Amino acid sequence: MNKNTIKVIAFDADDTLWVNETYFREAENEFASLLSNYETENKIHQELFKKEIKNLAIYGYGIKGFVLSMIECALEISNNQVHQTIITDILNIGKRMLDKPVIILDGVISVLEALKGNYKLIVATKGDLLDQEKKLEKSGLIKYFHHIEVMSEKKECDYKKLITHLDIKAHEFLMIGNSLKSDVLPLINIGASAIHIPFHTTWQYEEVKQDLPNSSYKTISKIQEVLNFL
Amino acid sequence: MNKNTIKVIAFDADDTLWVNETYFREAENEFASLLSNYETENKIHQELFKKEIKNLAIYGYGIKGFVLSMIECALEISNNQVHQTIITDILNIGKRMLDKPVIILDGVISVLEALKGNYKLIVATKGDLLDQEKKLEKSGLIKYFHHIEVMSEKKECDYKKLITHLDIKAHEFLMIGNSLKSDVLPLINIGASAIHIPFHTTWQYEEVKQDLPNSSYKTISKIQEVLNFL
Repeated sequence: MNKNTIKVIAFDADDTLWVNETYFREAENEFASLLSNYETENKIHQELFKKEIKNLAIYGYGIKGFVLSMIECALEISNNQVHQTIITDILNIGKRMLDKPVIILDGVISVLEALKGNYKLIVATKGDLLDQEKKLEKSGLIKYFHHIEVMSEKKECDYKKLITHLDIKAHEFLMIGNSLKSDVLPLINIGASAIHIPFHTTWQYEEVKQDLPNSSYKTISKIQEVLNFL
Repeated sequence: MNKNTIKVIAFDADDTLWVNETYFREAENEFASLLSNYETENKIHQELFKKEIKNLAIYGYGIKGFVLSMIECALEISNNQVHQTIITDILNIGKRMLDKPVIILDGVISVLEALKGNYKLIVATKGDLLDQEKKLEKSGLIKYFHHIEVMSEKKECDYKKLITHLDIKAHEFLMIGNSLKSDVLPLINIGASAIHIPFHTTWQYEEVKQDLPNSSYKTISKIQEVLNFL
């Protein structure tokens, strides 16, 4: 990574700028307790995860698809015996998730203050469009960013499209985020830069099993450390 | 509208480039027949519409929010008596909608062929992000467009943001679409241009009651007629 060539810095949103995965974990636990008459907690978690991954190709990322998967999973686990009021409870889990406060992570504001004006800053995130826009609005961080890109996927081809759309070259783009799979690996593969800031909780689907050449990206423990490289 | 100043032409997608509303009408009819034990068809349509509008602020536009509203509506209309298998049927209505073929409207391809190279063409649409991207992909029209903007709303402020993001002035922007409310009115109000192409079916929520000064935008009956103004 050459700090002199970077023009656009993209921040992942969920679990990079603000708390997110924690809310999904809470929702999954609530879901498991709603269905505790039918299966063990462990089995319910496993089945929900399988259902989410199976539905990812049609629903994409975000809370609405998650709620639809929970409902489908509840019907299957219970062999259609789940009480109708539990379906309402599941809908309400989703509505509460969409209404959660935005808790900005430590150090985010000071980093954005330090970088604004020196780079074009954008948010690059997966999830539901309206939900992510609202969270950015609620966070009060909107003033730091040129715009938000809600992406249906974060694979190499998606980043290539984004970089073309920004009218820059790959080596002028730096991504900062908590997911090795979505915010780091695809960037390195297309010649862009990436900084990894692990969050204490990672969705199983975002976990990376392979060993990575650590020379090609930076891992830091606090977002303030990005300033050491810029 | 001054054809010499236009730089970017944005096309609405649903019911402008391809068939959409027809699929929603079919889904609503299917939903009504699933619940025919509990209410009249007319009442079911009315309640579903109310539910959709009530949930719009949290779910936004698109099929996933529509499915969640159908499920909530089914539970309420039936006083939680709706059989669990009907919930599965509703989930499947949604999955089938997300898997519908893309039927391109007459004249679209010849218009895009004529305009490409002369203007920056984009798609500006509401709806689910992944769904709209997939439809553009499936349509084969992707090669004509610089990119797709999936918007959470199509109000004046949303178009202002889009125009800023495109680095152009309002008078350099032309929107073409089937909804007076979403594709025409907000554009005129911010000094951009708009061409209205009515589709035979309009979602009740997109209907405009007020009289509009017809001098400020063009209404055409076939998309080919846009070429008369460009």
